[in-house]
Amino acid sequence: MIAPPLPPEFALIARHFRPLAGPAGLGLADDAALLVPPPGRELVLTVDTMVAGVHFLPGDPPDLVARKLLRVNLSDLAAKGADPLGYLLALSVPRATPDAWFAAFAAGLAHDQAEFAIALLGGDTTATPGPVSLSLTALGHVAPGGMVRRAGARAGDGVFVTGRIGDAALGLRVARGERADQAGRLLARYRLPTPRLGLVTPARVRAAMDVSDGLVQDLGHLCRAAGLGAEIEAELVPFPPEAGPEERVTCLTGGDDYELLLAVAPEAESALRSAAHEKHIPLARIGRFQAGAETVILRDPAGTPIPIGAGGWSHF
Amino acid sequence: MIAPPLPPEFALIARHFRPLAGPAGLGLADDAALLVPPPGRELVLTVDTMVAGVHFLPGDPPDLVARKLLRVNLSDLAAKGADPLGYLLALSVPRATPDAWFAAFAAGLAHDQAEFAIALLGGDTTATPGPVSLSLTALGHVAPGGMVRRAGARAGDGVFVTGRIGDAALGLRVARGERADQAGRLLARYRLPTPRLGLVTPARVRAAMDVSDGLVQDLGHLCRAAGLGAEIEAELVPFPPEAGPEERVTCLTGGDDYELLLAVAPEAESALRSAAHEKHIPLARIGRFQAGAETVILRDPAGTPIPIGAGGWSHF
Repeated sequence: MIAPPLPPEFALIARHFRPLAGPAGLGLADDAALLVPPPGRELVLTVDTMVAGVHFLPGDPPDLVARKLLRVNLSDLAAKGADPLGYLLALSVPRATPDAWFAAFAAGLAHDQAEFAIALLGGDTTATPGPVSLSLTALGHVAPGGMVRRAGARAGDGVFVTGRIGDAALGLRVARGERADQAGRLLARYRLPTPRLGLVTPARVRAAMDVSDGLVQDLGHLCRAAGLGAEIEAELVPFPPEAGPEERVTCLTGGDDYELLLAVAPEAESALRSAAHEKHIPLARIGRFQAGAETVILRDPAGTPIPIGAGGWSHF
Repeated sequence: MIAPPLPPEFALIARHFRPLAGPAGLGLADDAALLVPPPGRELVLTVDTMVAGVHFLPGDPPDLVARKLLRVNLSDLAAKGADPLGYLLALSVPRATPDAWFAAFAAGLAHDQAEFAIALLGGDTTATPGPVSLSLTALGHVAPGGMVRRAGARAGDGVFVTGRIGDAALGLRVARGERADQAGRLLARYRLPTPRLGLVTPARVRAAMDVSDGLVQDLGHLCRAAGLGAEIEAELVPFPPEAGPEERVTCLTGGDDYELLLAVAPEAESALRSAAHEKHIPLARIGRFQAGAETVILRDPAGTPIPIGAGGWSHF
């Protein structure tokens, strides 16, 4: 007559995920989270999925997979100028997933929750006959009207990026065994992006997004959203010091950097540079937005356009 | 020099999902949604995942899969007494998924968005080498302090359920070809639950959840949350009229009904019944919470306990 014992996933959730829940998560013991929105603020919400074999490699350490999952979402919040608040997590894992995998995965989340001062709000854990599939919904908040959009760049605005462009693309080559990585820096950057929180504000930045699909493609998004073109000066792009000339195509078109790509008014450049300096965030102007066709043009130091083919550049 | 053409998923999102986005979804053209929380309200958030082959059958019509995904989350909001606000959607689909699948899936969402007056806030669409995997995060809102919890039942409270208990478990048997379904009602109920929105309020209900894992198990959750036991009178349970006596075990332990399971104070019963009547929601008291061990006891009409084995009852 006793109610049936709890299925194994309940014990698993209690052991590994309950300690991650903040007050709004209600100990993960209810059917929903209860969040009191910060008074007078607007909410910014984003969701990103990572699938084993597509967005990470099945052998990647689970703690780093967890942290990357969290960070790619925090990177979206950073690009929008939002302060992170919390997240919900949907995990689908094969039935044979060992407890140690969950322990490591949760430890990664715990590490980054502390680093970014956020907490788990809720989640769902299910079995799948397919690969591990992870989906995270992150919530942030901004002052009213304070979210920075993709649209908003104006002709003459600088094209700025944070960090280095191409670390992750080269790191993926390392992970695939296609390239050496003596210091281990590239692989680490592929596995663990750094969300550049606290830099973007409407006063400093007119439009923004994070670089997830490659610089050229993502700059194309900002261009289309503004009805503008953009020119990049190749020698201004902060390539990884490890990148050989033949790898620059990969750097400019590869994804996963999760650096910020910004449209900055000339009169805001100095405030942005000061803020980046204060937060120790590398920042570089790599070009300018301009009136005209919604295209991205790359120029060599002599000002000559470098042709971009469908699969990259024909030379560089 | 033109930025590379957009990958196919952008066209797919624009075609099928952009029309579903409400104002907060910003046309799905930005990296995040921007939601102005209803002033003075608290937010209720829930996430549920459905994986093909686990939570639905690969051959299920995509529009019904979409509507079920939305409805299982709305059911959680209903159980918590929340008014639905919107949702974010993470889709992982095989690369060969035809456009018609997305069209039908989006049509299902559009149908239920209109029915429940909600809109898409944002999402992520990715490829997977595995089965279709769908994760939905739903947001609702309540008055401050107005969320009904799992905990809160008191000894003497009635155990109430909405609708019928077991429709979905029998419908799953139909879907598997294990059972006839002359009117098609059981299969329809398995594929398309009805979120019982608008019934639960703190004035009417002391504790609540929806029945997703089977009545006995979910009532066990309410009991543990309250430190109480519960007795169910077998003859009061609203079984499907199609259920034979040998199917009642399946009805009481099968999942997927997404009906509400409520703890109701005796003095609130009449208000709850009136509200259910007004909303045309079937409602039945099937037992009572009681002090003592955190167990669920089922009694036959003579008051004799019916033993529950691990896999069901030894007789019924």
